[in-house]
Amino acid sequence: MKNSIGTSVILTVFGESHGPAVGVVLDGLAPGLPVDEAYIAEQLARRRPAGPADTARVEPDRFQLVSGVYEGRTTGTPLTILIPNENVRSADYAAVQTVARPSHADYTAQAKYHGFQDPRGGGHFSGRVTAGIVAAGAICRQALAARGIRLGTHILRCAGVEDAPFTDVVSELDRIEAKRFPLILDLEEQVEAAVLAAKSEQDSVGGVIQTGISGLPAGLGEPWFDSLEGVLARAAFAVGGVKGIEFGDGFGLAALRGSQANDPFRMQDGRVVTSTNRNGGINGGITNGMPVVFNLAVKPTPSISRPQQTVDFVQGRDVELALTGRHDPAIIRRICPVVTALTAVVLCDQLALRFGTDYLATV
Amino acid sequence: MKNSIGTSVILTVFGESHGPAVGVVLDGLAPGLPVDEAYIAEQLARRRPAGPADTARVEPDRFQLVSGVYEGRTTGTPLTILIPNENVRSADYAAVQTVARPSHADYTAQAKYHGFQDPRGGGHFSGRVTAGIVAAGAICRQALAARGIRLGTHILRCAGVEDAPFTDVVSELDRIEAKRFPLILDLEEQVEAAVLAAKSEQDSVGGVIQTGISGLPAGLGEPWFDSLEGVLARAAFAVGGVKGIEFGDGFGLAALRGSQANDPFRMQDGRVVTSTNRNGGINGGITNGMPVVFNLAVKPTPSISRPQQTVDFVQGRDVELALTGRHDPAIIRRICPVVTALTAVVLCDQLALRFGTDYLATV
Amino acid sequence: MKNSIGTSVILTVFGESHGPAVGVVLDGLAPGLPVDEAYIAEQLARRRPAGPADTARVEPDRFQLVSGVYEGRTTGTPLTILIPNENVRSADYAAVQTVARPSHADYTAQAKYHGFQDPRGGGHFSGRVTAGIVAAGAICRQALAARGIRLGTHILRCAGVEDAPFTDVVSELDRIEAKRFPLILDLEEQVEAAVLAAKSEQDSVGGVIQTGISGLPAGLGEPWFDSLEGVLARAAFAVGGVKGIEFGDGFGLAALRGSQANDPFRMQDGRVVTSTNRNGGINGGITNGMPVVFNLAVKPTPSISRPQQTVDFVQGRDVELALTGRHDPAIIRRICPVVTALTAVVLCDQLALRFGTDYLATV
Amino acid sequence: MKNSIGTSVILTVFGESHGPAVGVVLDGLAPGLPVDEAYIAEQLARRRPAGPADTARVEPDRFQLVSGVYEGRTTGTPLTILIPNENVRSADYAAVQTVARPSHADYTAQAKYHGFQDPRGGGHFSGRVTAGIVAAGAICRQALAARGIRLGTHILRCAGVEDAPFTDVVSELDRIEAKRFPLILDLEEQVEAAVLAAKSEQDSVGGVIQTGISGLPAGLGEPWFDSLEGVLARAAFAVGGVKGIEFGDGFGLAALRGSQANDPFRMQDGRVVTSTNRNGGINGGITNGMPVVFNLAVKPTPSISRPQQTVDFVQGRDVELALTGRHDPAIIRRICPVVTALTAVVLCDQLALRFGTDYLATV
Repeated sequence: MKNSIGTSVILTVFGESHGPAVGVVLDGLAPGLPVDEAYIAEQLARRRPAGPADTARVEPDRFQLVSGVYEGRTTGTPLTILIPNENVRSADYAAVQTVARPSHADYTAQAKYHGFQDPRGGGHFSGRVTAGIVAAGAICRQALAARGIRLGTHILRCAGVEDAPFTDVVSELDRIEAKRFPLILDLEEQVEAAVLAAKSEQDSVGGVIQTGISGLPAGLGEPWFDSLEGVLARAAFAVGGVKGIEFGDGFGLAALRGSQANDPFRMQDGRVVTSTNRNGGINGGITNGMPVVFNLAVKPTPSISRPQQTVDFVQGRDVELALTGRHDPAIIRRICPVVTALTAVVLCDQLALRFGTDYLATV
Repeated sequence: MKNSIGTSVILTVFGESHGPAVGVVLDGLAPGLPVDEAYIAEQLARRRPAGPADTARVEPDRFQLVSGVYEGRTTGTPLTILIPNENVRSADYAAVQTVARPSHADYTAQAKYHGFQDPRGGGHFSGRVTAGIVAAGAICRQALAARGIRLGTHILRCAGVEDAPFTDVVSELDRIEAKRFPLILDLEEQVEAAVLAAKSEQDSVGGVIQTGISGLPAGLGEPWFDSLEGVLARAAFAVGGVKGIEFGDGFGLAALRGSQANDPFRMQDGRVVTSTNRNGGINGGITNGMPVVFNLAVKPTPSISRPQQTVDFVQGRDVELALTGRHDPAIIRRICPVVTALTAVVLCDQLALRFGTDYLATV
Repeated sequence: MKNSIGTSVILTVFGESHGPAVGVVLDGLAPGLPVDEAYIAEQLARRRPAGPADTARVEPDRFQLVSGVYEGRTTGTPLTILIPNENVRSADYAAVQTVARPSHADYTAQAKYHGFQDPRGGGHFSGRVTAGIVAAGAICRQALAARGIRLGTHILRCAGVEDAPFTDVVSELDRIEAKRFPLILDLEEQVEAAVLAAKSEQDSVGGVIQTGISGLPAGLGEPWFDSLEGVLARAAFAVGGVKGIEFGDGFGLAALRGSQANDPFRMQDGRVVTSTNRNGGINGGITNGMPVVFNLAVKPTPSISRPQQTVDFVQGRDVELALTGRHDPAIIRRICPVVTALTAVVLCDQLALRFGTDYLATV
Repeated sequence: MKNSIGTSVILTVFGESHGPAVGVVLDGLAPGLPVDEAYIAEQLARRRPAGPADTARVEPDRFQLVSGVYEGRTTGTPLTILIPNENVRSADYAAVQTVARPSHADYTAQAKYHGFQDPRGGGHFSGRVTAGIVAAGAICRQALAARGIRLGTHILRCAGVEDAPFTDVVSELDRIEAKRFPLILDLEEQVEAAVLAAKSEQDSVGGVIQTGISGLPAGLGEPWFDSLEGVLARAAFAVGGVKGIEFGDGFGLAALRGSQANDPFRMQDGRVVTSTNRNGGINGGITNGMPVVFNLAVKPTPSISRPQQTVDFVQGRDVELALTGRHDPAIIRRICPVVTALTAVVLCDQLALRFGTDYLATV
């Protein structure tokens, strides 16, 4: 499916950083869902650069609902969102078209597309494409919320600053949404300072982000290849910079014994729950009704202005690269709404597969 | 696709732990590939319980090539492998049919299948199903090897014992294959002792395993949803017990700065290479020609014989579970050939998509 | 997907005519559906050669339920059915391995599989593979019947003999099922005589078959590429010998004016119905609640014993072929249960997609 | 996949008749293919209403290349084409929003989308959406032509006028392309007169169209579910008004004996060819190297201005409908470039799957 994900609800992304527009087609969504343009704009704003810790390229993200919406609601047919690129300075990139930024997609794009790729601003590999995902995800999030399913993503760790992990997802989601930097604890200044410190040294930082989902019914996902973990992981690795994913305590579980890692079941108000949630709400690939929690490793932005050793892949020779252009010293803040949005799309797909295409519509 | 994975080369798994057989259909493989039954048997043997650190249920794994093979070679049509279950003692499981083993799939299977699932020995969720994957992967591995692509998996970490990470994949693969416990360093006794220590305390252990792939061409994978990372992750989470995946230095990258995490490119013998490989051979979701390396977090086996707090999900009440039956105190050794096999299948699919269905055939 | 069809309920076929077995994996079916072995056997019997108008190769079709069935019901996990080949006389085919039977798949298989295909008895292209489809379809048909959805296929036209088209599907399905040759009118002797006439002249005949489905809800199918017509057509062309499909009056509609071809809507007992059904129950790719009716053109069996002009595709020279072996002078009778079964599988998939995976289970 | 088709090259359609725009995303096309805007415009012109025999709604079809094109060539990333709707008169449709046009999708859309569908001008079901398909197909057609693969569609039969079938596809394609009405014989006036005759009686006509493809290699397609016939049929039924498809002599074959229907093979200039082509270039679902030929039954346009009996599906009562608005009395001329374009997309997908993603690029 390449640039598409999903089985019953299918998201397709398109666009290049410096082309006319980026966008998405979201196909298979239930009819009748509200399309709240203000909420979409709000979510796009959370992804937008906002201060010295982000890139200087600020796009207004004026989105257009091209299809699939009628009188403010989804029609059930493909919903297309177009977000024109307005603040484009391609000249910045002219010099680097054949010089590979280390650990960026420049060289691999060349190996795949033989020089026909649009090299300006990372082309189709640009984080710019995630604007469309956020817009689509906003619609999905509201549909999920109407079914009692809520989700969000916060910075768990960044440049030595450590946030608290989710313990009570719903209340913590409210805290996260209220802040400019999505954090459970009051660490915004510390994170911003750490990013600016790296920036001042012409460098960048990464971090770990954590997504929490509450309200999912038990029984979602499949054994084997469509495990919810596998499906969410495939989605997560679509986001540039993600190099690892773990569910629940993930790599931490690997160091435990079974008696420590197992989450005991118990009855609570007639429902089956677990006393701990080290497995992140998923057993055997299928939800158990507890919050689904996963962490993503986000590597530091590869585009840094420090001189770096690399190659000119057309001339086939070693060169030193001193990068100019507008880059994020960290994407850790901006990636959070992207992962939330993409996760929301995946959940809508899973629910539609399990309960039918009208499931989210019939609230 | 549920129990299937792949686009051009498609693997489907079926079977229950105590049913007549487990097996796979492998569809879309190039015609004319050798089907080396001795090599398949050898790979199955690497997955088979072999000693006190494994379950007492030892299956002969007598596989049958039901379709898709003619005169010792693949025909190009669906290749079906059947592995009958011969050593079945379902009585062990009679007692636990409605009592959920903590962190196992018992309860989630109930939520999904409403009591119609085959509960004996974990049913379709059983690791037994991976025997078919190993058999299919054996054919794929030989096809890849004929193209110069080699891969394998070793135990990187288990119960305090730490193996060396891959540095020179090809030579280390030879070391791994020669041993009963797949390890680069000579730590077999230590790992086995650690597993037996847990077993003696009616407990289990997990660990981290590492897969290395050498010889892949640059340019494999897609931006966004079919990134090679996403595709391999979806496959990996199919394997029971996997709770995390990271590529290259993964979560370690999240703590670095860009200047530390980036892999500098340089020319070597007319080829583009990187001086380090912290990104695990993948940039922007696409191979860069360096070895692909990823780690999987494997949680401790949830089936332990210590008494555990849980519920009877039919009666809806809290119970204590004292598990009997034959279980692995660790799957860390046996999971390695499974992950290698599944990765081999995924790579055959990726190569067929990129270079055509005859790519592996025309050597 | 190659040898698989479906999105939520997925059928995969495998096997060769003279290999160990043919079979299917049916994945995604709701849990708890009865698996009625007697009914499966009965449906297989309807497909089996039965008299001088069919091939002399009669297989007992002893099927094995390898996975996905527990205590007589579907588990919801992949259901695998294996049907061993028992009556195999491959020697008949030895001579023709490089001589292409005109209009058969021998030459195209060579072009695709480069000589590695199993040539015995048509290999994977053999109608033998449809036995597995019939077995899978039997389970699906009973699940549909429990929801009030019934379907069947009859011979509409064969060698000059003309049956009546469906007018009242449900009652006519009963008539069809009761007969050895599925016909609405009492024309069994005429059809059999026509087939035997061709056989006596070392020739074969084709015909047109008609499938009727009653009880489908309105609203099934998608606009554009997953129109119910498109999905059913893709399935139908999988069956060897099918060269055309038309819905409702199909090609006949092409000669009419709109005022003649349109089916007027009217209310009946509070339901929307149409006065005529020239469009075969589908408008805009989506069911309108009337019976779905389609016709398939079945070409005469290409394997005839008359001498034919052809080529040896390995030697690259013209040859005359005088075919021996056991062949059907017509498949028109035996193809009917195959098309019914495959249609039943497709309908289960469509219903699961629309109404959720448990839709058929919750009756 | 709903509004998408393809495996390696994937086409997604979106848009409503009276919404902001219609369009497509074409994903997976090889990089480096020329994007000839003049040729796209020319193909769009062939689909555009052009005279009294077509609808009075004439759109300028000013298309925008939103993504996937750089410096006049495909980049290999998703190629998005947007075609704004400029000539919209939705008021025409206000009256009919709850009155079902007989044999149109109005009622089935209601059954599927529960009243949330965009009803203006047929919404997403409108033939307007095919403009995007034609634009995408134009790029594919030029890529195929560079590989020696040519294709086209002509009116075979319409309202009593009968064109000649393809006999020498390549030369006949040139004749067809040169005319306003795609016909092999000089029958343009007769066809137009027949359409106008129906129009003058407030009625509509259908017909049969024929597509021919020359230059395909042998060995394309799969046995069973991805037979080239099945894949092309699924695509064809996406086009509104198509009610039947037949390959080669199709339904005509059903009346023949095997000795008449079989196409004898023979050697010609070292290549395997057939003396006749009654099977339309496909045996066992796979191309045999002869031209692929298929016919489509196109029903008369359901939107006619004669009074018709129907229902108001919201009020649940019988009503008489006297349709106003701008409609085609026949789509037989305009549908030809649509089917050609869609077929071109499908062929690019098939070739990419078989020979790799760069196959069309490397000429």
